[in-house]
Amino acid sequence: MKHIVITIGREYGSGGRFIGKKLAEALNIPFYDKEIIEKVASEGHFSKEFVEKNDEKPNGIINALYISQNYTLPLNQQVFLAQFSVIREMAKKESCVIIGRCADYILADRTDTVNVFVHAPIEKRIERVVKYYGVEEAKAQDTIKKVDKSRAKYYNFFADKEWGKAKGYHLCLDSSIGIDETVNVIKAYVEGFNK
Amino acid sequence: MKHIVITIGREYGSGGRFIGKKLAEALNIPFYDKEIIEKVASEGHFSKEFVEKNDEKPNGIINALYISQNYTLPLNQQVFLAQFSVIREMAKKESCVIIGRCADYILADRTDTVNVFVHAPIEKRIERVVKYYGVEEAKAQDTIKKVDKSRAKYYNFFADKEWGKAKGYHLCLDSSIGIDETVNVIKAYVEGFNK
Repeated sequence: MKHIVITIGREYGSGGRFIGKKLAEALNIPFYDKEIIEKVASEGHFSKEFVEKNDEKPNGIINALYISQNYTLPLNQQVFLAQFSVIREMAKKESCVIIGRCADYILADRTDTVNVFVHAPIEKRIERVVKYYGVEEAKAQDTIKKVDKSRAKYYNFFADKEWGKAKGYHLCLDSSIGIDETVNVIKAYVEGFNK
Repeated sequence: MKHIVITIGREYGSGGRFIGKKLAEALNIPFYDKEIIEKVASEGHFSKEFVEKNDEKPNGIINALYISQNYTLPLNQQVFLAQFSVIREMAKKESCVIIGRCADYILADRTDTVNVFVHAPIEKRIERVVKYYGVEEAKAQDTIKKVDKSRAKYYNFFADKEWGKAKGYHLCLDSSIGIDETVNVIKAYVEGFNK
């Protein structure tokens, strides 16, 4: 197989992470999600807990205060920059699947990258976060809205384009057809891309 | 094959129409684009020329003037309503592929509809409109912008959602991988959808 990097943006509860994991298994290439956090931490930039806390976090009012007191970049931006380098290295080194973290934007100059966005109707996502993430049913819709808002804000700030807008990706798809079925569609796209 | 209706929204020059035609051939089901115009005309609502002129046209300032003088719906809205009925009939009668005309919105209550949006990078679209639509190279970019703007305006007005926003479709894809390759990906999605 040609060198290929597949980035996956995802709505919360759409199964995007799991789809990426199964896709990586099917293509027999590494999968990176939380692993990026560990890599950033292990390379000595920050502690694992620090990276976790500031991972995919958008800017907030607190940042202005932080800058004014510390005269350095806000914590989330420091983490973004550390992840930036790690993601660039990963993509250069080997074929892989990378979840979130503006990887599509970070790798925009590479011609061997396929950018995917996974979404699903709200009722399917509620079902999923209750079943797999242990979110209370009564709070599921609010949690989904909050996480999506945060992801969109993070993406739109750092990537300087619009999260979930079709034109920004090679492939956007509704995963409610099923996890394996969605993996198959992405595989078909990657095959076409690599032809 | 189960009853299935595939609607295709498309950026101008993305090859969406041709992709829809090849997809319909591959699935051995009817394909409707300009054919809708003929059907609306043949059912006696309007002349073919009249429908053609008002096909997929957004509202403009002229409409306000038209309403104030004629006390009836503007021409583009009359055509939209006639197409609305024809598209509903087509989808009910048999499996088919329908290009544009807010068919995804018109058929939103059907559970056997897959909504697709096809886009492509601007340089690929310029190449295509020059080669196949006879547009002058110097004017290609302007023509593309103008047609897309008109399609988006038409869609956003009638469909009351956003043209080209991933969440509004089951599948959005960049056709620059090739016409046949794009058809294959849509087929893979339809197979998953029909499982």
